[in-house]
Amino acid sequence: MINQYPDDSLTLHTDLYQINMAETYWEDGIHNRKAVFEVYFRKLPFGNGYAIFAGLERIIEYIQQFRFTETDIEYLRNEVGYKEDFIEYLKTLRFTGNIRSVVEGELVFGNEPLIRVEAPLAEAQLVETALLNIVNYQTLIATKASRIKHVVGDEVVMEFGTRRAQELDAAIWGTRAAFIGGCSSTSNVRAGKKFGIPVAGTHAHSLIQAYKDEYTAFHKYARRHKDCVFLVDTYDTIKSGVPNAIKVAKELGDKINFVGIRLDSGDLAYLSKKARKMLDEAGYPNARIVASNDLDEYTIINLKAQGAKIDTWGIGTKLITAFDQAALGAVYKLVSIEDENGDMQDTIKISGNPEKVSTPGLKRVYRIINQINHKSEGDYIALEDERPQEESPLKMFHPVHTYVSKFVTDFEAKELHQDVFKDGKLVYDSPSIWDMQKYAVENLDLLWEEYKRTLNPEEYPVDLSQKCWDNKIKNIQEVKDKLKKDTTV
Amino acid sequence: MINQYPDDSLTLHTDLYQINMAETYWEDGIHNRKAVFEVYFRKLPFGNGYAIFAGLERIIEYIQQFRFTETDIEYLRNEVGYKEDFIEYLKTLRFTGNIRSVVEGELVFGNEPLIRVEAPLAEAQLVETALLNIVNYQTLIATKASRIKHVVGDEVVMEFGTRRAQELDAAIWGTRAAFIGGCSSTSNVRAGKKFGIPVAGTHAHSLIQAYKDEYTAFHKYARRHKDCVFLVDTYDTIKSGVPNAIKVAKELGDKINFVGIRLDSGDLAYLSKKARKMLDEAGYPNARIVASNDLDEYTIINLKAQGAKIDTWGIGTKLITAFDQAALGAVYKLVSIEDENGDMQDTIKISGNPEKVSTPGLKRVYRIINQINHKSEGDYIALEDERPQEESPLKMFHPVHTYVSKFVTDFEAKELHQDVFKDGKLVYDSPSIWDMQKYAVENLDLLWEEYKRTLNPEEYPVDLSQKCWDNKIKNIQEVKDKLKKDTTV
Repeated sequence: MINQYPDDSLTLHTDLYQINMAETYWEDGIHNRKAVFEVYFRKLPFGNGYAIFAGLERIIEYIQQFRFTETDIEYLRNEVGYKEDFIEYLKTLRFTGNIRSVVEGELVFGNEPLIRVEAPLAEAQLVETALLNIVNYQTLIATKASRIKHVVGDEVVMEFGTRRAQELDAAIWGTRAAFIGGCSSTSNVRAGKKFGIPVAGTHAHSLIQAYKDEYTAFHKYARRHKDCVFLVDTYDTIKSGVPNAIKVAKELGDKINFVGIRLDSGDLAYLSKKARKMLDEAGYPNARIVASNDLDEYTIINLKAQGAKIDTWGIGTKLITAFDQAALGAVYKLVSIEDENGDMQDTIKISGNPEKVSTPGLKRVYRIINQINHKSEGDYIALEDERPQEESPLKMFHPVHTYVSKFVTDFEAKELHQDVFKDGKLVYDSPSIWDMQKYAVENLDLLWEEYKRTLNPEEYPVDLSQKCWDNKIKNIQEVKDKLKKDTTV
Repeated sequence: MINQYPDDSLTLHTDLYQINMAETYWEDGIHNRKAVFEVYFRKLPFGNGYAIFAGLERIIEYIQQFRFTETDIEYLRNEVGYKEDFIEYLKTLRFTGNIRSVVEGELVFGNEPLIRVEAPLAEAQLVETALLNIVNYQTLIATKASRIKHVVGDEVVMEFGTRRAQELDAAIWGTRAAFIGGCSSTSNVRAGKKFGIPVAGTHAHSLIQAYKDEYTAFHKYARRHKDCVFLVDTYDTIKSGVPNAIKVAKELGDKINFVGIRLDSGDLAYLSKKARKMLDEAGYPNARIVASNDLDEYTIINLKAQGAKIDTWGIGTKLITAFDQAALGAVYKLVSIEDENGDMQDTIKISGNPEKVSTPGLKRVYRIINQINHKSEGDYIALEDERPQEESPLKMFHPVHTYVSKFVTDFEAKELHQDVFKDGKLVYDSPSIWDMQKYAVENLDLLWEEYKRTLNPEEYPVDLSQKCWDNKIKNIQEVKDKLKKDTTV
């Protein structure tokens, strides 16, 4: 039953209701009214103090190829049952709008627009699902990788999770996000080819099993591989694995580069200390100890507290699936729409839950960087026409507890969004993934340590400008008034 | 940097160490020795009493296209640095082995071989990563869907999770797995096209926001969509949403089919009861109440306990990411390998952790079905040449607590594996996803209720035959003896 249709464009990678709504807009003649949607999440993942944005390059690919193929059209007509007039409209549909976005590797926080889509209403509606699907996962993984990198400091983190990833795309886009967040390499060769991420890995237990003993297997492996990391836990790490690794290293001498050993099971604290001692005594003080086995930032902190002697961390399941919180909840909300006179009207989504009330209007996001200490004072969300850089002092206040406020002078208001698409044309040139990683790491210097600790970090300020806040309150009031009127009639 | 290479075959979707090991085997001339690997997981996910296998169709796709493309070769040569002689070998490599597997929708359990790969050693090694990546995720989601379906009984479950899925593949293969496990439909239109799953969905909050009020939006929606489910929680479910839905339904009368309403936030127990009453009183006792908002089997059980009046369940994040356990830990272990004389030799992976010791030898899996009550007595793993059907009584005993045993008569020993590839040729004809779903549902009748409850189910027996068990113990002893010899020299 697979591939009943020969091609598989991503344009149908959307929820059915998006197409239904596009049809309603089209039937009503409002499908080309300009609409502004924003992508944002409300709550930082993992209780972390920041997130690292990723996913833009995949979004660019998706938007560039956005068109319903012949078989998409055939399916929508024959299987879903859309009528021919609407089908005709879909046939020629392209994305013609503007997209502004933060860049990959950017530090981002809750309740700030990560991506702003300004496009004809129907187009903006149709791309929602794919954009969220991409941003939610990749941002989650870049953030998880950054947390892990934070606890290991200068030590190396390798991404090893493909076999436990949630299907194939997650393995490769997840490892790319992990690289942006601070990993040094991937085990996935396809990701290496596709993205230029360094690939890493030596051998598995099956090599030892195929040769029935470690000594033979290590020797055989070393015949073709100069850089050797021997996996030492197939039978007994201390009694057999490490002694065999040392024996082979001694026998081969300069013929190989004995990089070190890998531990993949057992008590990593105990085994690494014991192995370190054995390697040192054998004259290999520079041999590295690589550890893996369901590790994440929590186990790493504990291993370090126990004095584990681990130099390199291979992280699988817990990173690639963001195991302790497997989803980020970014949403896509309509903040402004053109009315029948061609004027833009702000819109709001009210909710019984105050955190879920959206912030209306066309907005920009600024990072307010203190020019004295080069630390960030917080992010500042302003309406499109505001120029926070020109205000001095700049008043910053908490968008819920509004009495919490401060005045900032001597700052740079760095705008976080870049133009990515203009009138449907790509105007953004993606940096290399190396530059993204570098940007992510350097950006972290903007944050005080208190925002970066993995447990109970301080809350980083994401503030609304006074105008933006006033506008929100006004919109809330208008909805409440209208609701009261409607329900009392 | 994306698509530096124009194509993207899945053959490189493997861990680097697999290729390194293949190189070692090739260099040593043992790459074509026949090897047998098994895919199995040790522990059932979610504390469930069973799992539902999925992923085979994706594996078939993968195996059929298994060949290194020109650019794969180019990458391996230029970027990873494999030498030309080995590269030449890779160029013509195809999968030429046998694969036997349980079918999609099959009930499966811990420590039983789900897939058996018999192939030249290097080939079998290279496909490990992709097979695990596919089986781990799809089996996890099919199982999660089955748990959810179990608690809703005859009510309908719709899969709505694309926006929170872990990248694009997870959205579509996950929703397919969810369908096999018992979901009725998907919101993902691409999955509908690709797999023939029914698609479902009506409209989102943005439709209401675009029209600024529910009454207008519902009317506009109904102009093109005869089957109407109105989303009623944009402003105030009880004061505004439900009354507007009823008003529009009354006004449009027979022009539409007022299917019902959807609740997507707030207290679903309270709101559904209140809405049910309003719908009934307005003369719509058959209008359905669809609910969504971070639901899973736990929240559903609680909502039911509170008397919530929900007929249809839209499940997103918690299903598509298997949120409470985002990974299944299936492994791929070498159980037998050809020696220099062409004889097959069993192999074992020993571990300090007894659960992690593999079971050596070429094996088959049988489900022992009691012919009197048509319930399963358990699964029975036997060596290749055993014929459990011919034994009467059949002795079944616990593979760890071996004193726990029983004798079974009047049974059918149903073999669970089917031939999928023979000498690299596909010999299996996949059933439709409808048949897979039906098979999964009907199979559940084989299990006593005690195995199916979502909390603390009874442990289903997965037993080894006496010969299989003896063989395992023999192999353990051999390794121990060898280890003792090696470490005392």
